[in-house]
Amino acid sequence: MAQLPVSPLAPAGFPSMPAVRGVRLAVAEAGVRYTDRTDVMLATLAPGSTLAGVFTQSATRAAPVLDCETKIGDESTEGAAFLVNAGNANAFTGVAGQQAVAEITDALAAQLGLPPRRIFTASTGVIGEPLPAGRVTAVFDSLAKGPDATWEDAARAITTTDTFAKGASRVIETPDGPIHIAGIAKGSGMIAPDMATMLAYVFTDAQIARPLLQEMVAHFAAITFNAITVDSDTSTSDTLLVAATGIGPKVTSTDGPFAEALYAVMRDLAHLVVRDGEGATKFVEVRVTGAVDVPDAKRAALAIANSPLVKTAIAGEDPNWGRIVMAIGKSGARADRDRLTLHLGPHLLAENGQLAASYREEEGAAYMKRAELTLSADLGLGPGAFTAWTCDLTHGYIAINADYRS
Amino acid sequence: MAQLPVSPLAPAGFPSMPAVRGVRLAVAEAGVRYTDRTDVMLATLAPGSTLAGVFTQSATRAAPVLDCETKIGDESTEGAAFLVNAGNANAFTGVAGQQAVAEITDALAAQLGLPPRRIFTASTGVIGEPLPAGRVTAVFDSLAKGPDATWEDAARAITTTDTFAKGASRVIETPDGPIHIAGIAKGSGMIAPDMATMLAYVFTDAQIARPLLQEMVAHFAAITFNAITVDSDTSTSDTLLVAATGIGPKVTSTDGPFAEALYAVMRDLAHLVVRDGEGATKFVEVRVTGAVDVPDAKRAALAIANSPLVKTAIAGEDPNWGRIVMAIGKSGARADRDRLTLHLGPHLLAENGQLAASYREEEGAAYMKRAELTLSADLGLGPGAFTAWTCDLTHGYIAINADYRS
Repeated sequence: MAQLPVSPLAPAGFPSMPAVRGVRLAVAEAGVRYTDRTDVMLATLAPGSTLAGVFTQSATRAAPVLDCETKIGDESTEGAAFLVNAGNANAFTGVAGQQAVAEITDALAAQLGLPPRRIFTASTGVIGEPLPAGRVTAVFDSLAKGPDATWEDAARAITTTDTFAKGASRVIETPDGPIHIAGIAKGSGMIAPDMATMLAYVFTDAQIARPLLQEMVAHFAAITFNAITVDSDTSTSDTLLVAATGIGPKVTSTDGPFAEALYAVMRDLAHLVVRDGEGATKFVEVRVTGAVDVPDAKRAALAIANSPLVKTAIAGEDPNWGRIVMAIGKSGARADRDRLTLHLGPHLLAENGQLAASYREEEGAAYMKRAELTLSADLGLGPGAFTAWTCDLTHGYIAINADYRS
Repeated sequence: MAQLPVSPLAPAGFPSMPAVRGVRLAVAEAGVRYTDRTDVMLATLAPGSTLAGVFTQSATRAAPVLDCETKIGDESTEGAAFLVNAGNANAFTGVAGQQAVAEITDALAAQLGLPPRRIFTASTGVIGEPLPAGRVTAVFDSLAKGPDATWEDAARAITTTDTFAKGASRVIETPDGPIHIAGIAKGSGMIAPDMATMLAYVFTDAQIARPLLQEMVAHFAAITFNAITVDSDTSTSDTLLVAATGIGPKVTSTDGPFAEALYAVMRDLAHLVVRDGEGATKFVEVRVTGAVDVPDAKRAALAIANSPLVKTAIAGEDPNWGRIVMAIGKSGARADRDRLTLHLGPHLLAENGQLAASYREEEGAAYMKRAELTLSADLGLGPGAFTAWTCDLTHGYIAINADYRS
């Protein structure tokens, strides 16, 4: 597949990100599928680290996901490692897939002097081809002994069809000193996360008990990674892992500056995935309010965000609000046509079941030319609210997924 | 919007279809939105007709749908009429929408000497613009008194973005003489029917009690119109109406030649809608078997049929079966990766959770070049089976929905 141009919605460059104490990064070229680029990333975590994670709920999830699921509840605080290879998803690979995971985790455990239950792997890339585990294990010695990698190196090594490397970070000052949070993610297609999206790794040097960390991560995943969609298709490999190395200040609350910063990092990473949506030219926030409850709000928001007709209208810069009404109608959310209120950015589009008298088509058309859009729908029925993020559906998506052979 | 070229999946021409005793057709140019073409269709039904129907379950369904729903349970056998206008959907038009329906039904009832409760209207076209009811009622006199129209005339008058007129028919010989069944349909985008698809009208001269007719129509709609998808978007106007004029032989069973023929007409019409799917170049049958139950089979079949990544792979003639595995995995159907068996036409693709040893990529690639494809997935868990039909997702879909402004 030809190298794709960088998404027009990409940030100007990879952000400057702080070191997180207790985290060491390394990358290597294993040649799993790609050549002349790094394709393996190792993050080694200091003893004392607590881990949390959420994974795809796909019924056909990949072998590394199944392995991580059995390990993530581990309450121990030994050292740990995250290992990722790009180019091959080790999904739908049968018993051979499990064997490849075991081969990799056992070899890395031996290399690092850790128990295999503290090794968490992920594989991303083509589905259905056996993973050549030997190519991955062959680079373990150089990963362990070689130079440290930067956040950008790590983010780049896990990419597949991504057009840019993705990272986000925050630093919180506390009376006990600073806490650093840094994360990387990959993903641009097959994005409609069921528990997490594609691959995302977040690190902090805060000290935080595993149950508390897991609670926060699960809650924030629901409103960040699980609130984005590129194409409504859910990956077999979605993995979000969060590590707290415990070297810095202690966190004991799900509220406050740490929680806000962790949420912000996760949201930023989720947004970056949408900004790299295959073929995307518009970044779209879909805000639903006034639903009977949150599940209904989420149904309506994702129905809008996933609708091919809404997404092609956005691509065509067409303020075709009838398609938004259609999407709400099909969503399964309780809705009353005559209580709907729709806004396009600041412009009132429709209310009381019909076009707003004040709406001017030329204002809507001008707004649609923006690269970042907000579509708001108030269902007028209750307190349920949910915000989702999506991109438009363009010829670029078809070109990436149909014109090139995988 | 520019006139679109006829779908490459269209039949060679409109079929020869029999007259159905007790049905009179008429068409007119009302200029609701389009010019220089017919845009109103009237079907008048003889006294003694029984009616059945299914309608979209959209929460934002259009005013004519809401009106039909209140009337369809009527057990009387007076004459009746179906009236359709194309170009304006009278959807999300508030109170004005209901008033337009009342104006049209009252005027047509007076013109035909029927009670308003026996007038069933449908409107298809743009959403959110007030329907100019006066333009529709202005043609009632010429519809009532003018020449009879053919099935092809009627099918053409109800089209919007369709690239060809759609009709299907069957004739059954019985000891009491022949029964004729003929139907017309429209639709090519916003196709993921929730109860019926877009607009379809089926007529027979059989004599059949309303409850029996409704039972058959609802059952067959579930496995015909509700088993197709073009773009996963559900119309606000989906309407299927079936009339039995009672002039011919009596039908008293949901089994037998009449039921088979009614099913065949409904299935043929549903297939024609897929063959006119926006941008379609491939007609795809998705067969799921071995599911725990029928709802699971339907979930898996529609997840495959709706997946943008599966549909773009088909457009690209890429036997990318990993995307089928992904779609089953995300569908919510109970599935076990290691019991899945996949076929591409006659070719065994995958079994036991991995690629089949006998599969040859070049055979799969050659099969994908066909215009008509069958994808089969056996989940290996139970007796549940469902077949869905879809088309590919191409640049043509984007062009129709994004490049042109509606």
